[in-house]
Amino acid sequence: MARPLLYDYWRSSASYRVRIALNLKAIAFDRVAVDLVAGAHRSPAHLAVNPQGLVPALEIDGQILTQSLAIIEYLDETRPEPALLPGDPMARAKVRRLALAVACDIHPVSNLGVLARVGALAGPQARTDWNRDNIAEGLEAIEAMLDHPGFSGRFCHGTEPSLADCALVPQLYNAARWGVDFAHLPRISAVSRACGGHPAFVAAHPDQFDPSREARAFEGERA
Amino acid sequence: MARPLLYDYWRSSASYRVRIALNLKAIAFDRVAVDLVAGAHRSPAHLAVNPQGLVPALEIDGQILTQSLAIIEYLDETRPEPALLPGDPMARAKVRRLALAVACDIHPVSNLGVLARVGALAGPQARTDWNRDNIAEGLEAIEAMLDHPGFSGRFCHGTEPSLADCALVPQLYNAARWGVDFAHLPRISAVSRACGGHPAFVAAHPDQFDPSREARAFEGERA
Repeated sequence: MARPLLYDYWRSSASYRVRIALNLKAIAFDRVAVDLVAGAHRSPAHLAVNPQGLVPALEIDGQILTQSLAIIEYLDETRPEPALLPGDPMARAKVRRLALAVACDIHPVSNLGVLARVGALAGPQARTDWNRDNIAEGLEAIEAMLDHPGFSGRFCHGTEPSLADCALVPQLYNAARWGVDFAHLPRISAVSRACGGHPAFVAAHPDQFDPSREARAFEGERA
Repeated sequence: MARPLLYDYWRSSASYRVRIALNLKAIAFDRVAVDLVAGAHRSPAHLAVNPQGLVPALEIDGQILTQSLAIIEYLDETRPEPALLPGDPMARAKVRRLALAVACDIHPVSNLGVLARVGALAGPQARTDWNRDNIAEGLEAIEAMLDHPGFSGRFCHGTEPSLADCALVPQLYNAARWGVDFAHLPRISAVSRACGGHPAFVAAHPDQFDPSREARAFEGERA
């Protein structure tokens, strides 16, 4: 069986979610970098992979899957260990709602296309304010949602990483990039610390896939 | 066991999704109307129900669930008949990706709060253009995604309604409201026709819950 092939972009939150899940399940994968800034996601070649023109897409088990949360659910159903969703339906719903609160309510309103449109309508400062306000408000809500009996003080639900952590950690990376502080949110800060020290999350971090860093490393090899 | 209690708003797409799913599973429910236009979703009472200040929320089995897709997955896991997801993991992923393409990529960029912000930044015409462009582009992508072997020519996947139809049909209602035509998209039009004739979808339609219609009906009763 071929190794799964991930079409991703190093800074894409949705790609980062899937990288975390693949690493948590110790699934080795290859990568096709799709440069969103250069518009590669709108090429006919990429549209044949994903008609939405988005990343990530994962070629696995002979087919191509898209939508990060659908991909992670598929991985969890076909490679169940370690589980990224609890067994109890109510607990599963609580984990899914955290992931969806990021994926439906924070991330889409801050994606590159939306921000470009805001910038075109109202200028760069409006674009920055839009994005910071959206992320800050979204994280306040997540903090309140983490006030639940399943919160362990480390991960979003229970004592091991779940689908919710796969979704939240990339959003925290985005928050930091845009100067949105979350140090005053103790539960989110605790998740950030726990995941920041977890090898599956470290290996999925965008910095590991930064093309300029990769180029520098290559230069170093040649030197 | 108490009947499930749905906190919803008649025109909210995400609420409409859950009403369809409840009807498909023949689960009788009571409703609490949360008037988004009047700001009732930001009241302390509603924030205690849902810290995100959104609808829907469903009180069921002694707890409150939020996020429409998490609610529908919970209903499908605890009340499995009729199934809203297929049994095969790859097919489940294909259904989920359609639902997520609506819930993550079309709906959030057209929600009331985002549109209000666009209107404040750039005026009412920019707001209308933003929304129409977003819905039209999103539906083009969905049409391409429906070009898959599981498309039956009636529902999004297979010969019975699924999670994907629960998500798509409310988005088509929104498209029509905003004057976004989809008659040139044959697969979406076929889904619209099939679901438009299905009693679970008819009973969930926003028109059934329009407060002005309800008020008129009440006037009629008094007359």
